[in-house]
Amino acid sequence: MTDVTIVSEKLEQAGAVLADYDVDAWITFGRETSDIAEPVLPLLLGEDFVWPGMVLITQDDERIVLCETHDADTIRSVGLHEVFSYENSLERVFREVIESIDPDTIAINYSKSNNTADGLSLGLYRLLEEYVDGASVEATFESSEPIINRVRGTKSDTELKRIQCSVDISLEILETMRNAWRPDWSEADVAEFVHEEVESRGLSTAWHADVCPAVDAGSQAEWGHAKPSALRLPEGEVLHLDFGVVYEGYASDMQRLYYRPVDGNSTIPTGLQSAFEDVRAAIQAGFETLRPGIQGHEVDTAARETLTDRGWPEFQHGFGHQVGRNVHDGGTYLGPRWERYGDTPTKDVLEGQVFTLELGIETEWGYLGQEEMVVVRADGAEYLTAPQTSIELLEE
Amino acid sequence: MTDVTIVSEKLEQAGAVLADYDVDAWITFGRETSDIAEPVLPLLLGEDFVWPGMVLITQDDERIVLCETHDADTIRSVGLHEVFSYENSLERVFREVIESIDPDTIAINYSKSNNTADGLSLGLYRLLEEYVDGASVEATFESSEPIINRVRGTKSDTELKRIQCSVDISLEILETMRNAWRPDWSEADVAEFVHEEVESRGLSTAWHADVCPAVDAGSQAEWGHAKPSALRLPEGEVLHLDFGVVYEGYASDMQRLYYRPVDGNSTIPTGLQSAFEDVRAAIQAGFETLRPGIQGHEVDTAARETLTDRGWPEFQHGFGHQVGRNVHDGGTYLGPRWERYGDTPTKDVLEGQVFTLELGIETEWGYLGQEEMVVVRADGAEYLTAPQTSIELLEE
Repeated sequence: MTDVTIVSEKLEQAGAVLADYDVDAWITFGRETSDIAEPVLPLLLGEDFVWPGMVLITQDDERIVLCETHDADTIRSVGLHEVFSYENSLERVFREVIESIDPDTIAINYSKSNNTADGLSLGLYRLLEEYVDGASVEATFESSEPIINRVRGTKSDTELKRIQCSVDISLEILETMRNAWRPDWSEADVAEFVHEEVESRGLSTAWHADVCPAVDAGSQAEWGHAKPSALRLPEGEVLHLDFGVVYEGYASDMQRLYYRPVDGNSTIPTGLQSAFEDVRAAIQAGFETLRPGIQGHEVDTAARETLTDRGWPEFQHGFGHQVGRNVHDGGTYLGPRWERYGDTPTKDVLEGQVFTLELGIETEWGYLGQEEMVVVRADGAEYLTAPQTSIELLEE
Repeated sequence: MTDVTIVSEKLEQAGAVLADYDVDAWITFGRETSDIAEPVLPLLLGEDFVWPGMVLITQDDERIVLCETHDADTIRSVGLHEVFSYENSLERVFREVIESIDPDTIAINYSKSNNTADGLSLGLYRLLEEYVDGASVEATFESSEPIINRVRGTKSDTELKRIQCSVDISLEILETMRNAWRPDWSEADVAEFVHEEVESRGLSTAWHADVCPAVDAGSQAEWGHAKPSALRLPEGEVLHLDFGVVYEGYASDMQRLYYRPVDGNSTIPTGLQSAFEDVRAAIQAGFETLRPGIQGHEVDTAARETLTDRGWPEFQHGFGHQVGRNVHDGGTYLGPRWERYGDTPTKDVLEGQVFTLELGIETEWGYLGQEEMVVVRADGAEYLTAPQTSIELLEE
């Protein structure tokens, strides 16, 4: 079923964004996209192509689809695009359409550093080169990545509402878990409980269920990408969860911390409280820096230095990623300028983007990781839900 | 969980196949492959890459993985590959490995006509070009498609067993449907019943559940890609289903036909029986032609001409596609040499490939589509299950 609301809103944005670029045609080209996803199509089309097909948007805001006859039926019935279908030759219908546009520059769906803008396979690119060579146009290709980053990153009203629901539901599930928690639960038991809550709502986890939620039960937990184990949470230590769901196509990604009292004594140890506050302060420092126009790495630095200034080691990952249809939604990254992150930390933050803010430290009480979600407004960041400002208690 | 059995068998095949090609290194390069699938990785790795990563197989049958540290843990623990991991720079570790191999030719995962061999994005290809340019090697790229077609297409013992289970289960579900069928069932009711049978077995449909099963209730049904409707099957007409499941990662794809008696009279009308036999004869003609070494279009022609010789119009699709991890598993296609099929109908059939054989005609009793599944043996084709040789009855 085409998600008409989302596609309408994103096409609207696409036309407005394209006007800022010296690009005559923006092509998103895919094939068998239910097997090999083309990540822009859910925004601009809302359907899969079985046969090779393109969404083509022009500077005049024409929304054109070129696709095979069978693929065309649904797209035509939705009525958001002008559809040119082919039975045998995509090349022929492409030639007609592209010659009537006569573009000098064509933006295509590839990117070296951003997988959500890199849906064009090399095989289809080779075909596209042949198609353009065979047509009476003199056009050069460029990457549509900057356009995609803006269209994908700037969340529409409906997208924001769905992300908000996704955040609220994930915290509701975590609260249900906290109330149900029993001292004899292993990490795996916690994960199983959370999975049942996800399934009972007809939802799915935001990343692979083997490690969503990630569950770390105290200081002996193997923090990182390990699956929930048979480990139980000792008294006086901290349970850490990293978790999110997908709600109507949109993800959440949150971390929360819980303390198990010693002999019913619910006073948080001073050292733990202080470490927690250091983590909180680093998140808050990044939060206060985040605003439209800043580069991703500057936000990362603000958080990172707050933590190291307080005597903790640097975290070995970036401070925040975008969230949307994917839990890692590509584009601008609030990360350090390490080689592995390519150029994503030097891109500008834009109004309407949704980010995680996340970091953590390893302590004698367990891994203290915090992760919040925010949306970027004109004047700065706004939390999507109240951040965790104190460690919650588990009760027996 | 890595599917160790499958990956072991396919790596074994890969080494043997690569020996037939003048290729020094075969690289399969992917990134965030749980979002944008790389279709060769399930065969050669059995895990997803989050960060950019490669499987590299050499003429000496070395099985090398280059990937990010976090991605490396599971792969290393499975123990089927030699793993070189990086924290920051894939390029650096790639350079070391590729210089020690010093290849003249590198096969990479792209194809113009076969999506199951076209997992390399243009963005990653541009990165790979830079990596090779930066290394002290003089290597040219070529498509790994012929290698992939053989490794993917030639089913291992375990793959064949799973496909066989998938076929058996899909027919078992159809038989359950036939026994449960009621005259007041609409196409949508039939589909709903089938979906419940699939779910109760913990399986999924072989393609999008909206149109799997495809259900056509008699002569008024809209044949093609339409979703099951509110239409009920009239007496004296034919119910047609196109259906398959996925069992342990492997698909089936079958069509079956059922007749609704008129006033309890279960005699199939002569014209219907004769039309059914024409379809059956065309399937059988293709079946008898299919053997290793023949080209796909020759098999299509045998079936197509049998049908037109009997006075029916040509079917507007190919006669058979491969089935495996995907219901359309790529490579050699038993189809006509129409432009839309690219070069897939002129490729050779290989021993160990699994194909559908399918075609149909529109009649006054409804759409008479038949689809069987076969495996290619050294001396010809072998049905995976007894073909439908008579129209089954629906009983009220």
